[in-house]
Amino acid sequence: MRTSSAMTLAARSGVALRLAQGERLRIINTHGTQVVDFWAFILGGPAEQLSMSHSRNAWYRLSPRAGDPLLSDRRNTMLTLVEDNSPGIHDTLIPCCDAVRYAQLGHPGHASCADNFAAAISALGVPGPELPPAPLNLFMNVPMRANGTLGVAPPEAKPGDSVTLRAEMDCIAVLSACPHDIFPVNGADCTPRDVQYEVLPPG
Amino acid sequence: MRTSSAMTLAARSGVALRLAQGERLRIINTHGTQVVDFWAFILGGPAEQLSMSHSRNAWYRLSPRAGDPLLSDRRNTMLTLVEDNSPGIHDTLIPCCDAVRYAQLGHPGHASCADNFAAAISALGVPGPELPPAPLNLFMNVPMRANGTLGVAPPEAKPGDSVTLRAEMDCIAVLSACPHDIFPVNGADCTPRDVQYEVLPPG
Repeated sequence: MRTSSAMTLAARSGVALRLAQGERLRIINTHGTQVVDFWAFILGGPAEQLSMSHSRNAWYRLSPRAGDPLLSDRRNTMLTLVEDNSPGIHDTLIPCCDAVRYAQLGHPGHASCADNFAAAISALGVPGPELPPAPLNLFMNVPMRANGTLGVAPPEAKPGDSVTLRAEMDCIAVLSACPHDIFPVNGADCTPRDVQYEVLPPG
Repeated sequence: MRTSSAMTLAARSGVALRLAQGERLRIINTHGTQVVDFWAFILGGPAEQLSMSHSRNAWYRLSPRAGDPLLSDRRNTMLTLVEDNSPGIHDTLIPCCDAVRYAQLGHPGHASCADNFAAAISALGVPGPELPPAPLNLFMNVPMRANGTLGVAPPEAKPGDSVTLRAEMDCIAVLSACPHDIFPVNGADCTPRDVQYEVLPPG
């Protein structure tokens, strides 16, 4: 059985970990206003990965609430959002940041969630998708204005806010503490910060 | 040079076709209220496909308007929505229908856009993604209610309404005339209908 002591995910970095069915992954917004990009996929057998479009089809909302399933692109429930101790603002619309995006913004070579995704999978030593799928952007605040346009606003998550995901099947989970520091994606001060995560045993 | 005569895409069926850079694909809602799922991907080289999340990141809206680019998962502009002679209601949130979804709805073995996608690629004789990516659901009406929930409403597209996409790179385009006949996805009478498409030369 694993311990439940929280690990630190350093600002601007990523991690991939194996989750066994029933285990819970808690992601803690240690200092508040930090976005954490989340992905999951299956090892072995036909490719299967967490899908925001299929999950939205189950929710009929843009983002999940406590109790909602997170579905794969084969419509299997991969995880459940079992607890949300945050304002409940998460994004499923926007892709993860990547080298191309930062180059467009005038910051070539900037750290990115896409690079974190690839490095985290490589560090775990497992095969994964070549490109990051559409992520569940935990704590990310993408408000829709009355005219239908989307914005990017500082997250409302406070220090210590957390979400807990339960694995409904053995899977690989990947987290990236978003390195964005150009727009207020990670807070009004545009300063990426550490977060914490812990894996809790079934129960 | 190809002719510009319109082809019929029979109700409940799909088609894949090669588009050369500069060619335009016009999709005509012949009888109105019919949803057409649309995908595109590149042949050869690293996998690259049309991505709704990356496209939304360019639009900062949920759906495209005339003039908007359609981006790949590598943030390249694959196509441009050059003309929209419809009410402009299209969906980027919901995945295509598939066998699993119809089984859940009590209709095992029902025709689906996912099956159309696979059959269309197979008929063209090219390799494609194993599972359909998140589609651009042309003419699909997914209203968001004031409480944040999403619905499925009959499309507002009238007979003869059309959209025109220009290929900005050589690509494979896939269309599916959605076979959904359980909810009013394809109109209040839940009756899938033929649509038409035509490939127009550059210009």
